[in-house]
Amino acid sequence: MPKRFSVDQYADGILAGNRILLSRAITLVESTLPSDQALAQQVLDQVLPHTGRSVRVGITGVPGVGKSTFIEALGLHLVGQLGKRLAVLAIDPSSQRSGGSILGDKTRMNQLAAHERAFIRPSPAGRSLGGVARSTREAMLLCEAAGHDVIFVETVGVGQSETAVHGMVDFFLLLMLAGAGDELQGIKKGIMEMADAVVITKADGSNEMPARRAKGEYRSALHLFPLGPSGWSPKVTTSSALTGAGVPEVWQVVEKYVQHTQQNGYFQKHRQEQNLHWLYETVRQALEERFYAQPAVQQQLPSLRQQVMDGRKSAFGAAEELLGLS
Amino acid sequence: MPKRFSVDQYADGILAGNRILLSRAITLVESTLPSDQALAQQVLDQVLPHTGRSVRVGITGVPGVGKSTFIEALGLHLVGQLGKRLAVLAIDPSSQRSGGSILGDKTRMNQLAAHERAFIRPSPAGRSLGGVARSTREAMLLCEAAGHDVIFVETVGVGQSETAVHGMVDFFLLLMLAGAGDELQGIKKGIMEMADAVVITKADGSNEMPARRAKGEYRSALHLFPLGPSGWSPKVTTSSALTGAGVPEVWQVVEKYVQHTQQNGYFQKHRQEQNLHWLYETVRQALEERFYAQPAVQQQLPSLRQQVMDGRKSAFGAAEELLGLS
Repeated sequence: MPKRFSVDQYADGILAGNRILLSRAITLVESTLPSDQALAQQVLDQVLPHTGRSVRVGITGVPGVGKSTFIEALGLHLVGQLGKRLAVLAIDPSSQRSGGSILGDKTRMNQLAAHERAFIRPSPAGRSLGGVARSTREAMLLCEAAGHDVIFVETVGVGQSETAVHGMVDFFLLLMLAGAGDELQGIKKGIMEMADAVVITKADGSNEMPARRAKGEYRSALHLFPLGPSGWSPKVTTSSALTGAGVPEVWQVVEKYVQHTQQNGYFQKHRQEQNLHWLYETVRQALEERFYAQPAVQQQLPSLRQQVMDGRKSAFGAAEELLGLS
Repeated sequence: MPKRFSVDQYADGILAGNRILLSRAITLVESTLPSDQALAQQVLDQVLPHTGRSVRVGITGVPGVGKSTFIEALGLHLVGQLGKRLAVLAIDPSSQRSGGSILGDKTRMNQLAAHERAFIRPSPAGRSLGGVARSTREAMLLCEAAGHDVIFVETVGVGQSETAVHGMVDFFLLLMLAGAGDELQGIKKGIMEMADAVVITKADGSNEMPARRAKGEYRSALHLFPLGPSGWSPKVTTSSALTGAGVPEVWQVVEKYVQHTQQNGYFQKHRQEQNLHWLYETVRQALEERFYAQPAVQQQLPSLRQQVMDGRKSAFGAAEELLGLS
């Protein structure tokens, strides 16, 4: 097989649901080579009219919450009983450092990975969060063009990756453990307020009662926050990947949300806003990359940073100096 | 009096606590004239060694929560019993549109405004949030140089101004009403999670019991969130500007926070991070301003925006096109 195909070959393959060409196109999207990037944009432009027809679900939760088993259980329900085609993507900022990635070990979801209607792709490694977010979003569009009805974007429950995922999905699902102690959850402040649903996982055996109690607590807590512009009040449910209890109910919540927001117009409006947001985000990232890559800026920045941190120079004065260099 | 003074005149006047020169220097900081801006930066650089010695408190809450009366009550306690010197600044994005400003009507706090140890300055009008945030932050530094021990930065409880205020203060105070209905509070999602303390206002008369109940509810809700990097768990109190009940206690909470974070090193570390944040923010704003001011970009942007919103062009493709123009 050749290393690269033509734009038409990629596009036609993707639209025909060819998994190999889909994978290869995602590799292009993840590449940092300018020639790959240019090719990727042409492929994207060509398949763009066939994108947007999936439900995009962000899923987050700290390690230990049982994210993989939950995704496998919910995923098998979708591709099995409901006959959906599902793509599972991931954003993992830690893969920058470790070179590994949260979905890298596909054996964690081997039943789902083996299913013909499921497509699992690990987080791209070795790029900044902005870069990872960009390629994940583009991979999502390619998966939609390949006919997937549901996209899961998984992330890790710590750091800024949640905001990136929240900015590219229709529905944001937060997985929580009952009784693990609030600090142990490690959920960053602000993440709970992004959730359209909270699922208390591992609600089985001796953990069933604590899970039910936690459900009540989170319900009251979320109730204190006013409704967002979607007009949707976040739901709290429990589920067990072990017994399967509560798993179909999670998808019913997602479907209810989609119905609700399609009726009030928020679904479409939200996607338009997300598209615009990514336009401005991409410009911002490029402007900053160009600016900080300049030799004069790179030379002056460390000492100016230090002076600003020490309060010897005002942040604005230092910024002016830097800006004067370019 | 001349329209402009020399750098030394401004700096010496500010350091001597001259209110007129302080006001005039803040006017410079708020000016959009390049010559004023340059002069302002020189003044700032000269007084910089004398800044940073105040406690910076952000105060937010929706209209109707009793913000002015609360600030007046707490302010009079500070400048009176405690002998502090207090500056009250404001960030009001709505003043962009209306031309008015939340502190514009000083008569709302006439006792405090008349006090010799208080300095009240309304929100600068007619600039973007970024511009208002910048000049408020610089005004804060000037007020510190003029010997104020406590700075209040007031904002309105809706929109992005909270994030800007949160990024420039040591302590963030959220005012809430009891029993007004969650939706009526109009507090944007995410704001509660920024709060170091929530104060339920107007806890007097028939409102006292509901306020106490609300206190319990918010306590439980905040308890579900893990501690932030400050290691501080947010406090919830009630207060009445009418009877004065609970007002000194609010200041005790602030002092406890300062003690706590000075002991664990967070106070200083947080300020250094804020300084760095403002350096990068200023650079970003300037880069974006320059970019979007280009005629070719201004010409292409509307049609590209529309194509991105409609899904006819990918956000990244459109960004590439724009970036290619400069």
